[in-house]
Amino acid sequence: MATTAPQRLAFIGLGNMGGPMALNLHKAGHRVTAFDLSPTACEHWSTQGLSMAASAVAAVNDADVVISMLPASRHVEALYLGSGSTLEDKGGLLQALTPGMLLIDCSTIAPASSRRVAEAAAQRGITMIDAPVSGGTAGAAAGTLTFMIGGAPETLERARPLLECMGANLFHAGAVGAGQVAKICNNMLLGIMMIGTSEALALGAANGLDPAVLSEIMRRSSGGNWALEKYNPWPGVMANVPASREYSGGFGTDLMLKDLGLALESALATGAPTTLGSVARNLYALHSGAGQGALDFSSIVQQVMKS
Amino acid sequence: MATTAPQRLAFIGLGNMGGPMALNLHKAGHRVTAFDLSPTACEHWSTQGLSMAASAVAAVNDADVVISMLPASRHVEALYLGSGSTLEDKGGLLQALTPGMLLIDCSTIAPASSRRVAEAAAQRGITMIDAPVSGGTAGAAAGTLTFMIGGAPETLERARPLLECMGANLFHAGAVGAGQVAKICNNMLLGIMMIGTSEALALGAANGLDPAVLSEIMRRSSGGNWALEKYNPWPGVMANVPASREYSGGFGTDLMLKDLGLALESALATGAPTTLGSVARNLYALHSGAGQGALDFSSIVQQVMKS
Amino acid sequence: MATTAPQRLAFIGLGNMGGPMALNLHKAGHRVTAFDLSPTACEHWSTQGLSMAASAVAAVNDADVVISMLPASRHVEALYLGSGSTLEDKGGLLQALTPGMLLIDCSTIAPASSRRVAEAAAQRGITMIDAPVSGGTAGAAAGTLTFMIGGAPETLERARPLLECMGANLFHAGAVGAGQVAKICNNMLLGIMMIGTSEALALGAANGLDPAVLSEIMRRSSGGNWALEKYNPWPGVMANVPASREYSGGFGTDLMLKDLGLALESALATGAPTTLGSVARNLYALHSGAGQGALDFSSIVQQVMKS
Amino acid sequence: MATTAPQRLAFIGLGNMGGPMALNLHKAGHRVTAFDLSPTACEHWSTQGLSMAASAVAAVNDADVVISMLPASRHVEALYLGSGSTLEDKGGLLQALTPGMLLIDCSTIAPASSRRVAEAAAQRGITMIDAPVSGGTAGAAAGTLTFMIGGAPETLERARPLLECMGANLFHAGAVGAGQVAKICNNMLLGIMMIGTSEALALGAANGLDPAVLSEIMRRSSGGNWALEKYNPWPGVMANVPASREYSGGFGTDLMLKDLGLALESALATGAPTTLGSVARNLYALHSGAGQGALDFSSIVQQVMKS
Repeated sequence: MATTAPQRLAFIGLGNMGGPMALNLHKAGHRVTAFDLSPTACEHWSTQGLSMAASAVAAVNDADVVISMLPASRHVEALYLGSGSTLEDKGGLLQALTPGMLLIDCSTIAPASSRRVAEAAAQRGITMIDAPVSGGTAGAAAGTLTFMIGGAPETLERARPLLECMGANLFHAGAVGAGQVAKICNNMLLGIMMIGTSEALALGAANGLDPAVLSEIMRRSSGGNWALEKYNPWPGVMANVPASREYSGGFGTDLMLKDLGLALESALATGAPTTLGSVARNLYALHSGAGQGALDFSSIVQQVMKS
Repeated sequence: MATTAPQRLAFIGLGNMGGPMALNLHKAGHRVTAFDLSPTACEHWSTQGLSMAASAVAAVNDADVVISMLPASRHVEALYLGSGSTLEDKGGLLQALTPGMLLIDCSTIAPASSRRVAEAAAQRGITMIDAPVSGGTAGAAAGTLTFMIGGAPETLERARPLLECMGANLFHAGAVGAGQVAKICNNMLLGIMMIGTSEALALGAANGLDPAVLSEIMRRSSGGNWALEKYNPWPGVMANVPASREYSGGFGTDLMLKDLGLALESALATGAPTTLGSVARNLYALHSGAGQGALDFSSIVQQVMKS
Repeated sequence: MATTAPQRLAFIGLGNMGGPMALNLHKAGHRVTAFDLSPTACEHWSTQGLSMAASAVAAVNDADVVISMLPASRHVEALYLGSGSTLEDKGGLLQALTPGMLLIDCSTIAPASSRRVAEAAAQRGITMIDAPVSGGTAGAAAGTLTFMIGGAPETLERARPLLECMGANLFHAGAVGAGQVAKICNNMLLGIMMIGTSEALALGAANGLDPAVLSEIMRRSSGGNWALEKYNPWPGVMANVPASREYSGGFGTDLMLKDLGLALESALATGAPTTLGSVARNLYALHSGAGQGALDFSSIVQQVMKS
Repeated sequence: MATTAPQRLAFIGLGNMGGPMALNLHKAGHRVTAFDLSPTACEHWSTQGLSMAASAVAAVNDADVVISMLPASRHVEALYLGSGSTLEDKGGLLQALTPGMLLIDCSTIAPASSRRVAEAAAQRGITMIDAPVSGGTAGAAAGTLTFMIGGAPETLERARPLLECMGANLFHAGAVGAGQVAKICNNMLLGIMMIGTSEALALGAANGLDPAVLSEIMRRSSGGNWALEKYNPWPGVMANVPASREYSGGFGTDLMLKDLGLALESALATGAPTTLGSVARNLYALHSGAGQGALDFSSIVQQVMKS
């Protein structure tokens, strides 16, 4: 974990990811004031040592940097831009921020939403980066997350010491929104590869091959990929992966479904053809619809295994 | 290249792959008698130093081992089993072989065809392995091919010194036919990954990301795979790959189409679901139908790049 | 054409569809004041007898009913709700309308956009129906369009005499937005059937069947569908369809692509699985990307015909 | 039912379809000698009045015409050509037939299998037509089946009086094998339309539309098709279809899966692209794999209905 001059941070969103991330910033010596709409979450993280504010507006009071980790585009837009349903609400949290502040949004949301918030922030003299993460709850706790970052290089440099308190790998993808794009491209590819790997293993097994032997052959041939080598979906082939513990833990099917949804929204908006991405999303949707949404996404292999 | 006691070999099929493979066996000191239906091929490889026979039957005369490298299932079945259209033809080349001989078929064909030939061979006391290769014409020339092998372990050991004259990696996949299965599973997965990688890069590019930057991010994240890292399809991202030379050389679209066809035939026969594999095959078929069948299969990226 | 008491109508959007629709209302005796952002369109329809206003705001002055026919969601939202980029612009055309007016939007747009405009209109005491059409430019000229309508039954009754000046079939699909939903569901199904029909005919032709004979067999069997029977995509099977005139005229590939995009946006938003719909959209996108976007959508058959 | 001079018929295969078909020939006055490998089936149809033979060879003794109705390609090839595993078996039932006989195969099998049997038959002076049926067990019992027929026109004319005892519609598709091709093309299209219709209805329902209203709108628009109009998959929309009785009866998912498999085998063999057909097959395979193989194929709607 990098050392850095202590800063005054507001952290909004203390879910399974946000809570441990805020705690790592606190442990690194920063003055963190946190807030979550859930009183239970506030209470829990308060006992872990985080200072709580009574509202998002209260949290950002006196802060130099605002960090947010929220579930979806609508939560991020509602927080920063306001819901627009009442006059008072217009403008959202951005109205409570002062020029010169830094805003780091770690949520995984639509690139267009990131850009919308960043533009509104810029109009108030506030700079923003989007910095969605991968690495899961284990990576959040251990401070080893990977950040995919969109924003101006100098803004990234300003944020770097804080990001390094929470993560081990920082990738600069481009301008604001590019972090989101990189993440949804990566996860779309991952979602495709997991199904492709499952189909290849199932086809081999249906022809009498041992999935462990076939995995090893493909790993050392041109079939090598992260899903096969680091996260093998076939039960019994690899230890310490969700497939070895009945697909508990890991990255849930419904989270993969959400990311594929963001990817396809973006594909529709830009006109990019993503045939395999579309089919993959639908296969995860069928899997979720069959009641498996909470299982790790590698459980998609069950769809193709012969009973 | 392994050293081994010289053997008397018959080599049938001197195409772009078979020719260099036979030559490597010759250079390793084996007594190779070769045959191809094409007089042009016979003439060419004769000038390279190979001894030619006037027919397949003549080639196997006095041979200890028969090695074949043919384009498709029908050629292999016709060679060994005969076309069955005339009484004389019944039985094919197997009728000319003597018990105790070893048969190594390096063709990429349907697993069922391999098993059919192996069973007929076994009835005559001849053992067989199927040993399809990957590595392309460059690997064939350099003797660095990868063999995926199906057959009894002791048969593989008998064949190993010969295979090591032609290749660098030998994978034992299982019983006869398993080499074919491993190859078509691997290539189906590769075909899927190449399209998935192309879609991810195109989606990123449509959103303003630099494909080289996005490639590097995904490579170091969970999107890593052989197609992205060793064979990047986007022009300008990687040197010395088909994408850097307008998709010349490499592994042709029509060859990928053939292997995906074998995979789906096998999936239909065994009832294994292969949704992404099926869609991938159709996308390569559209690409081939649009006149790009001779280009390297990574040219499928052209289908998703915005013009 | 139905007779009805003359009304004062504002008609916004005089494209290939809107122009003839406005003219039919004019010919039926209504007092139409029209507007289009394109001076060329205004000039053209002025010569046909329509009265032109200098702006959308001027057009609605003194009107009882506003009818709009615009290309996409963003145009409809910008017109009625304003772009929101300046304070003056806030509110859009709705600010110029008076309570009690009727708003008929005939554009094909996202159901969510229809609902958004209708809610904002309702807050000002203005009732709205969404009434997207099918039937093409020929139907617009002949006044034989089909309307798929969302809105309260009494609002539909109020609009009926006007709609009947422009169309022959009125379907009430449900509440506001339901007209859009019905249209995108119908067109998604049509888009799928056209490809399915093309694949079936191509498979038959590849096996030596006469596409005309196969069409007749399927028409009288369980393969019967609108694309096969009314709009056969195979050249030479049916007269007076786009396939008989090199796919000119008709319903363009890019329009089908737009409607499939709306369908999939809605599917993503509601979580509905639409696997075939997604694949169909991507196949039309590939067809458009190959330069065929302006051809009738039945030209998708070219993708599967063997050259 | 047509009247015709009584003929001596051998009928092989008394399953759910074959039994009632043979009975209709018997009732029409023909002298039917039947056989089935299952003693239970023989006993059952014997009590219905059919004469039973002790073997297929015994059944064809003295027959003018042989009619067969078997489950799959391998059964038909084994019956007529023999399994080839023993010398005695070589040639199969064809060896017991005499020149001039007529062979009518009503099984749904691979076109290539039909052609193979027909060629072998022709070498013995026996003419054959392939005449697969649609219409289900109800149509078989009522004698209202539809026949799709491949063979020479004069052979069809010779068979016509017999076919008319069993069916109401006879379609001549082309040369031998063309009946099979027409059937698999039709059923592939039907399988696609059933899923497309299900997706459209589910998308409408997810947006609040009444599936019955939406069905009616699409029926009268360009979404009209057999699956929607005659066999609506949504529960409660239409009476007297499988959807109204929990998907019992009708045409089973596994039968659709079989026909789609035949279609895709043929597509692979001819190189015809069938992207939607391939995806449709995989969706039915997933449905079957989830335990729904015995339900009517319209139950595929369950895959897309939100729980």
